[in-house]
Amino acid sequence: MADQTTKRIAVNTGGGDAPGLNAVIRAVVLAAIQRGWEVYGIEDGYAGLLRGEEGEVVALTRDRVRGITFLGGTILGTTSRGNPFEWPVLSEGEVVDRRDRSDEVVEAFHDRGFDCLVAIGGDGSLRLAQRLAEKGMPVVGVPKTIDNDVAGTDFTFGFHTAVETATEAIDKVHTTAEAHERVMVVEVMGRDAGWIALYSGVAGTADVVLIPEIPFRIEAVCEKIRERQRRGRDFAVVCVAEGARHEGREEAVTKEVPSGEVTQTRLGGIGQVVAEEIAEHTGKETRSLVLGHLQRGGTPSPYDRLIALRFGTAAVRCIAEDHIGCMVGLRDDGITHMPMEEAIQQKKYVSPDGDVVQTARELGIALGDEEV
Amino acid sequence: MADQTTKRIAVNTGGGDAPGLNAVIRAVVLAAIQRGWEVYGIEDGYAGLLRGEEGEVVALTRDRVRGITFLGGTILGTTSRGNPFEWPVLSEGEVVDRRDRSDEVVEAFHDRGFDCLVAIGGDGSLRLAQRLAEKGMPVVGVPKTIDNDVAGTDFTFGFHTAVETATEAIDKVHTTAEAHERVMVVEVMGRDAGWIALYSGVAGTADVVLIPEIPFRIEAVCEKIRERQRRGRDFAVVCVAEGARHEGREEAVTKEVPSGEVTQTRLGGIGQVVAEEIAEHTGKETRSLVLGHLQRGGTPSPYDRLIALRFGTAAVRCIAEDHIGCMVGLRDDGITHMPMEEAIQQKKYVSPDGDVVQTARELGIALGDEEV
Amino acid sequence: MADQTTKRIAVNTGGGDAPGLNAVIRAVVLAAIQRGWEVYGIEDGYAGLLRGEEGEVVALTRDRVRGITFLGGTILGTTSRGNPFEWPVLSEGEVVDRRDRSDEVVEAFHDRGFDCLVAIGGDGSLRLAQRLAEKGMPVVGVPKTIDNDVAGTDFTFGFHTAVETATEAIDKVHTTAEAHERVMVVEVMGRDAGWIALYSGVAGTADVVLIPEIPFRIEAVCEKIRERQRRGRDFAVVCVAEGARHEGREEAVTKEVPSGEVTQTRLGGIGQVVAEEIAEHTGKETRSLVLGHLQRGGTPSPYDRLIALRFGTAAVRCIAEDHIGCMVGLRDDGITHMPMEEAIQQKKYVSPDGDVVQTARELGIALGDEEV
Amino acid sequence: MADQTTKRIAVNTGGGDAPGLNAVIRAVVLAAIQRGWEVYGIEDGYAGLLRGEEGEVVALTRDRVRGITFLGGTILGTTSRGNPFEWPVLSEGEVVDRRDRSDEVVEAFHDRGFDCLVAIGGDGSLRLAQRLAEKGMPVVGVPKTIDNDVAGTDFTFGFHTAVETATEAIDKVHTTAEAHERVMVVEVMGRDAGWIALYSGVAGTADVVLIPEIPFRIEAVCEKIRERQRRGRDFAVVCVAEGARHEGREEAVTKEVPSGEVTQTRLGGIGQVVAEEIAEHTGKETRSLVLGHLQRGGTPSPYDRLIALRFGTAAVRCIAEDHIGCMVGLRDDGITHMPMEEAIQQKKYVSPDGDVVQTARELGIALGDEEV
Repeated sequence: MADQTTKRIAVNTGGGDAPGLNAVIRAVVLAAIQRGWEVYGIEDGYAGLLRGEEGEVVALTRDRVRGITFLGGTILGTTSRGNPFEWPVLSEGEVVDRRDRSDEVVEAFHDRGFDCLVAIGGDGSLRLAQRLAEKGMPVVGVPKTIDNDVAGTDFTFGFHTAVETATEAIDKVHTTAEAHERVMVVEVMGRDAGWIALYSGVAGTADVVLIPEIPFRIEAVCEKIRERQRRGRDFAVVCVAEGARHEGREEAVTKEVPSGEVTQTRLGGIGQVVAEEIAEHTGKETRSLVLGHLQRGGTPSPYDRLIALRFGTAAVRCIAEDHIGCMVGLRDDGITHMPMEEAIQQKKYVSPDGDVVQTARELGIALGDEEV
Repeated sequence: MADQTTKRIAVNTGGGDAPGLNAVIRAVVLAAIQRGWEVYGIEDGYAGLLRGEEGEVVALTRDRVRGITFLGGTILGTTSRGNPFEWPVLSEGEVVDRRDRSDEVVEAFHDRGFDCLVAIGGDGSLRLAQRLAEKGMPVVGVPKTIDNDVAGTDFTFGFHTAVETATEAIDKVHTTAEAHERVMVVEVMGRDAGWIALYSGVAGTADVVLIPEIPFRIEAVCEKIRERQRRGRDFAVVCVAEGARHEGREEAVTKEVPSGEVTQTRLGGIGQVVAEEIAEHTGKETRSLVLGHLQRGGTPSPYDRLIALRFGTAAVRCIAEDHIGCMVGLRDDGITHMPMEEAIQQKKYVSPDGDVVQTARELGIALGDEEV
Repeated sequence: MADQTTKRIAVNTGGGDAPGLNAVIRAVVLAAIQRGWEVYGIEDGYAGLLRGEEGEVVALTRDRVRGITFLGGTILGTTSRGNPFEWPVLSEGEVVDRRDRSDEVVEAFHDRGFDCLVAIGGDGSLRLAQRLAEKGMPVVGVPKTIDNDVAGTDFTFGFHTAVETATEAIDKVHTTAEAHERVMVVEVMGRDAGWIALYSGVAGTADVVLIPEIPFRIEAVCEKIRERQRRGRDFAVVCVAEGARHEGREEAVTKEVPSGEVTQTRLGGIGQVVAEEIAEHTGKETRSLVLGHLQRGGTPSPYDRLIALRFGTAAVRCIAEDHIGCMVGLRDDGITHMPMEEAIQQKKYVSPDGDVVQTARELGIALGDEEV
Repeated sequence: MADQTTKRIAVNTGGGDAPGLNAVIRAVVLAAIQRGWEVYGIEDGYAGLLRGEEGEVVALTRDRVRGITFLGGTILGTTSRGNPFEWPVLSEGEVVDRRDRSDEVVEAFHDRGFDCLVAIGGDGSLRLAQRLAEKGMPVVGVPKTIDNDVAGTDFTFGFHTAVETATEAIDKVHTTAEAHERVMVVEVMGRDAGWIALYSGVAGTADVVLIPEIPFRIEAVCEKIRERQRRGRDFAVVCVAEGARHEGREEAVTKEVPSGEVTQTRLGGIGQVVAEEIAEHTGKETRSLVLGHLQRGGTPSPYDRLIALRFGTAAVRCIAEDHIGCMVGLRDDGITHMPMEEAIQQKKYVSPDGDVVQTARELGIALGDEEV
């Protein structure tokens, strides 16, 4: 149990993988150890706090976090297991039911003498953390998602690396699109928000960028392709967010199939739909490419590492300064924090009037809502 | 018309895009200019030689090839248009028939006073070049394909860059596979030969590598995944060549749909099939990813640039030394050449007994033919 | 001369090279053309406006700026020639005198019917632009420097790419430092401000980071190295900004030698001095490495491309909206603008109390001002 | 002690760092474990075999080598300590004498029941291994050096990664050289052989490449720079191997200063000398850059990983098949082996008549031996 100055803190990671998770963990550990605190990692989301589950609570020492800043993934096992409020009940490896084990989690947390949890997660994980906070578990949140759609911070960590991966992909298909005189459709992540598509599409000089915030008409897309053809540019690159909204054909976007089966994001995903319609309307040979999990993995970019390390130390400062219940964030390239409750009230979307969208339009990039 | 020492040579590019095309072109141009020769580029495959087609024959000067070594694509327009022996007859943009225009091509070649063609292409393009050679067009071939399946050379240019792209992708999905406790199936190029899959799968430490040369049984694949699970490694990465042969289910591999429609390599491709079967047999959440054209594009790697530049100058030396009808190649990291006729007689396949396959097995990588 | 709606604008680039220059130029051109304006590039700084100089004024069309977004350098020739207020007078290739030709520049600008200049430059170039503005030349500024030390913007373009290059270098020497049990000193750019050193040093997990804003004592540096040794970590990586201030040995930093001779930044540079003193005081084998111009070159990172493209279109919007005399900038990842006069009044320095410095300290990175 | 089928093998690493060391180690371990053998790592060169030294002999399990394929450095501590035939005698941390401890090493090797050593090293380390072999220690060698100068193999591992690092550097300085109208001299590794300089210089399209195998005259270098200037190309990039031989000024190349002091490779290194002379003779502003240890570090390239993994399994096969005393190698992209004794008899140099040199000349790259 902690005395007045020493603290025992826990850290966990939740939701999809994002480059920089390990950097946050390392920063939390080093900043806490420097204060004479102890840090423990809860493995596999909250599983480490539940009796009988495989995950464990492990002491995180300086040695344990050595050299992990640039490693993808997380040293805390899987990020993807379980919502304590709807914990899966398994029978012979199959999920047969779900039940609320949140009280168990909170109790185990206190039993182990933890003073605070650093919850590293996206929108969904932070909501869970907030609900546990309301049940009496002291929490500080660290916003993580490659989608960049968490309010209360200019950037989540992982986003810039995903943009780099997507931009590199767009760069690569560019010359091939030209050499083969094809239309190439690149589908990137972003179910609700178009940050990755917009940033990588503009940086990679795509000809068309389709984002959820700006519903598109296929005719506007095709007109852009035809206009290029008239100027002798017999190819095009289209960057489409997985959540892009096809006016009048919203059903086209596939739903995810639950775990245990292959997830069919590729079948009939929006990229495929857009490619098929372009081929049909313009007669151009068209191919689509789904970047998928490529965007979640790999070494975090230097700026993502820096954001992650700053978030990690800032979370520890929040605990030291008693800003419990807060989420750390980045504003104006400086660290800030705000009540987690506020941060999770709404997602952060691309503003259709913002300067990046404006930049895209002024560069001649079609967003699919143009008059034809 | 060329005098005894001066020559007029032409260069064209055919088949799929490959990183290094521009490097070859630049090398041909500089090596020829140094000898006082003239070089012309035939745009769009052979179209530039046909009356009434859009492609043209353009003079390639030192200025024209400046700074292109590291650029993907080809400055000679598209690589993908047309076999002169089955030239498309268009009516309103649709291919309505095909006819043999090879004589026209050879005639135009001579009319323009060209002494030799440097034909940069893969297996298919080199075969066409050989047939034109048999009709009296002096040709020197440069082997190009990311698939590395041209006989007569240790490496084609473009291959190493494709391996780098594929390895990077495998690296990236690795940590995400682990963080999400999933099986990730990465489908790479290689319709007939498994070079890319084998080289990137081993370098990227995939757990399973499936190549056309070694037909696989899904049960052997699943056993590898289960064996990992038994050792507490609850995830796996599978690298599969697009032409991998599923014993007893050969029909699973999709054929390409011709131009003018979207090519459906992704629907029901072998990666998808493997992913579905793994999910079904092991109950593991499984996702597949098709790298597709990512592997064709981008800046050539330093070694690919070097190979491409060496091939380009070697092609010019072949012309200077009268090795007409030859294809240049790489043996023991040195330049060689052999009759094009021989080189195209058969493709170059991965040897199931070769040391890279052996290395894979000794590293514990499953190739799908293991006894279960 | 422009009518009320059409404008003729000019663009130039000044100061050191920075990744993203071409992206800004392209964005200016496309955004202007979309408005029906004309854009001209002034080659070689202001030389293109001076009679008898080699530089020219060239029309920048859509074709001229195609495909340049990701290219390093500048299509407008050199960035480094000349201050119009102290223009070099040459005699036989030698600078024999300097004279004020600013009036000539302003006159030529008006004679050619230009409405506004987009001046892309760092601190020094923007000051020149401001002085020309005071002489009646309408100017909009775009802040460029890899050093990130321009006030009025969170980031200049080029900075993130330089940080990536420096971080990659630190990553690389890390394992070699360990394998060889050495101290490696990496000197990065930053004469006045330590942004590159701090960002890359933290992201690359250097053990010591020395920046101009925090004068260092060598004893504090050596103590960090000894402390590591006591923990069995028999190596260290030191990241030092070229302008780092060695308390009591300020003279150690070399001055640049003027053009026409080899610039001796490497001889007796601060990296070398620090390396020698570490070797002397600790007995550890120590090597230093000067990254130098590596940091200025290459393909801009996706975020730098995006910033550059946004700056370029924003500069055109400034002209359209009559914010003449302003510099564009980035605040909170959104475009802003402010009077250029204000922006150049002072440089932007790393705050010793800011959160990145704090993060560095909490990660155990020595900044050289620690009590020993 | 091993029975007939089971073996105990040891592995160590010697000489300078090279990307791929860990991949070799992992391959040795996995291939040996698959055979039911045991593998031990000797830390810090041979120190782990000497009583009273810090290095140890550690069991290398499957877990110990997990995930290390892509890591730079070596998990076996330092690579750089000690020649058993001239082992340093320390007094208060200073080397006061050297003595022959080779018998001790051989004895300890047998005492521990090892059947064979896999010695991973460059020219020097393999010579040591050979001498120990002659004293009765069974050894198999794996050729490692970024310099690629080991005979008996087309490529050592580490070489291609070094070439990539050097080429990337040359790419980067290219645009800056142009933007600043400067001559940039990039000094790369290669004390005896010019492989890195030649491969990266050609791939990076340097204008001048200087290698030890072809002594250069500065006048030929300057003439190339002037010739470019006459064609309006007011900049140049020179790639020089650290061991390049300046005709008539051989003394210019610095010798390395022994351990314990800062090694002054940068002071008066050949790059600096060449830069100064170019500046003096041509009047061009010239800068030099020494890549140094950047070339030794970082993640091995896919091809280097593959070579390293193949070498590692091949070394185990050599032991299994009783090819003791051999060194593994690569010929024609296939594994081979030869008596270590032969391999170390001479270094592998660039042939001045080889096709890469020829390619360089035909691309217009000056090698410094041209008639002026």
